[in-house]
Amino acid sequence: MKAVVLLSGGLDSYTAGAIARRDGYELYALTIRYGQVHAVEVDAARRVARALGVAAHVELDLDLKAFGGSALVGEGEIPKGRDLDDEGEIPSTYVPARNTIFLSIALGWAEVVGASAIVIGVNALDYSGYPDCRPEFLRGFERLASLGTRSGIAGARLEVLAPLLHMSKAQIIREGVVLNLDYAFTHSCYDPGPNGAPCGDCDSCRLRARGFSEAGVADPLCR
Amino acid sequence: MKAVVLLSGGLDSYTAGAIARRDGYELYALTIRYGQVHAVEVDAARRVARALGVAAHVELDLDLKAFGGSALVGEGEIPKGRDLDDEGEIPSTYVPARNTIFLSIALGWAEVVGASAIVIGVNALDYSGYPDCRPEFLRGFERLASLGTRSGIAGARLEVLAPLLHMSKAQIIREGVVLNLDYAFTHSCYDPGPNGAPCGDCDSCRLRARGFSEAGVADPLCR
Repeated sequence: MKAVVLLSGGLDSYTAGAIARRDGYELYALTIRYGQVHAVEVDAARRVARALGVAAHVELDLDLKAFGGSALVGEGEIPKGRDLDDEGEIPSTYVPARNTIFLSIALGWAEVVGASAIVIGVNALDYSGYPDCRPEFLRGFERLASLGTRSGIAGARLEVLAPLLHMSKAQIIREGVVLNLDYAFTHSCYDPGPNGAPCGDCDSCRLRARGFSEAGVADPLCR
Repeated sequence: MKAVVLLSGGLDSYTAGAIARRDGYELYALTIRYGQVHAVEVDAARRVARALGVAAHVELDLDLKAFGGSALVGEGEIPKGRDLDDEGEIPSTYVPARNTIFLSIALGWAEVVGASAIVIGVNALDYSGYPDCRPEFLRGFERLASLGTRSGIAGARLEVLAPLLHMSKAQIIREGVVLNLDYAFTHSCYDPGPNGAPCGDCDSCRLRARGFSEAGVADPLCR
């Protein structure tokens, strides 16, 4: 059983990949450098891919900066000190159609290697804010995959696995502890300093800090 | 009314874009350089974008060679002298999930500029062979777009326009003549010579030649 795992270098995709590996999948790691300001994630993705013992790791560049439209690709400021429980609006870090694009590219590789699954680390925190992290979107993508690929029309089923979908950050971290993951390999900040140090105040840093705190685990990046 | 048009530099996407322009759309041209062997298409895309008077033209690199799996990205030989009416199998020029990937990237830009449509030049000849050129796939993508974008969940509808879907190559060329298009700007060969000259024998060259012949029009590239 093979699975393409979308690996960002953050702790979610690391944990999602580790769960798929535990469940018997051979992993093909795909990292998409989409012009994000936080390119330091890419180094983290390489460390994580090595730690997961993937069969192959492909890094692709896709410069979504050409479109603009998101703080994550350099348009406007990264929001800081936001209320993490604000479900009122989609944050400016939303990248238009990002998961549709990422899953589509993963689908191309999945078809080439004969993978029956794509693993994505979206979770409850994401899908409260981002439309393309919701379960109905992921099911819709599976339906599209069955229509748009040679293997799909031949009857092969492609599953989108989102094992973290209903987990909080603290639950994800506890699961990672059980799986013996080293989160020192990961990187989460939307707006790292020149030396790669996390800012500590963007949504991603704050969610990470709260997750480790609630899990009762020390973040190895903060030692 | 704005539309993102996927512009390859071939005559199909040029004609599809011209039809959308005639129908009142302001065009945003998107060319994706996916590692195709026939990079000369990209120069053609620039000429065509200029001829269409597009509001903007974005060229993106996405190296699908990293996955392999298609003769169009350098894996194996480009088939030559094939029976054009052979509907028995999907040709080796099929690029896994290509249209899913292209439409997804177009969707990202469409959301940023507020476009209500994506224009793609797939046609009857394509959809007899490629799964991701069939009407049911295109409708499936529209459904996914409504699930996976901020504008989609707010109720905006994204249409995938494929005005050539049921047209033969000859009908497309006759439509282009009516629209006063200059097909000298275009390029169609899957396997051009070092100087960019069409090989004359790949599926794409043969379909083009047969289309011009059946339309009773001289191909300006063959003057």
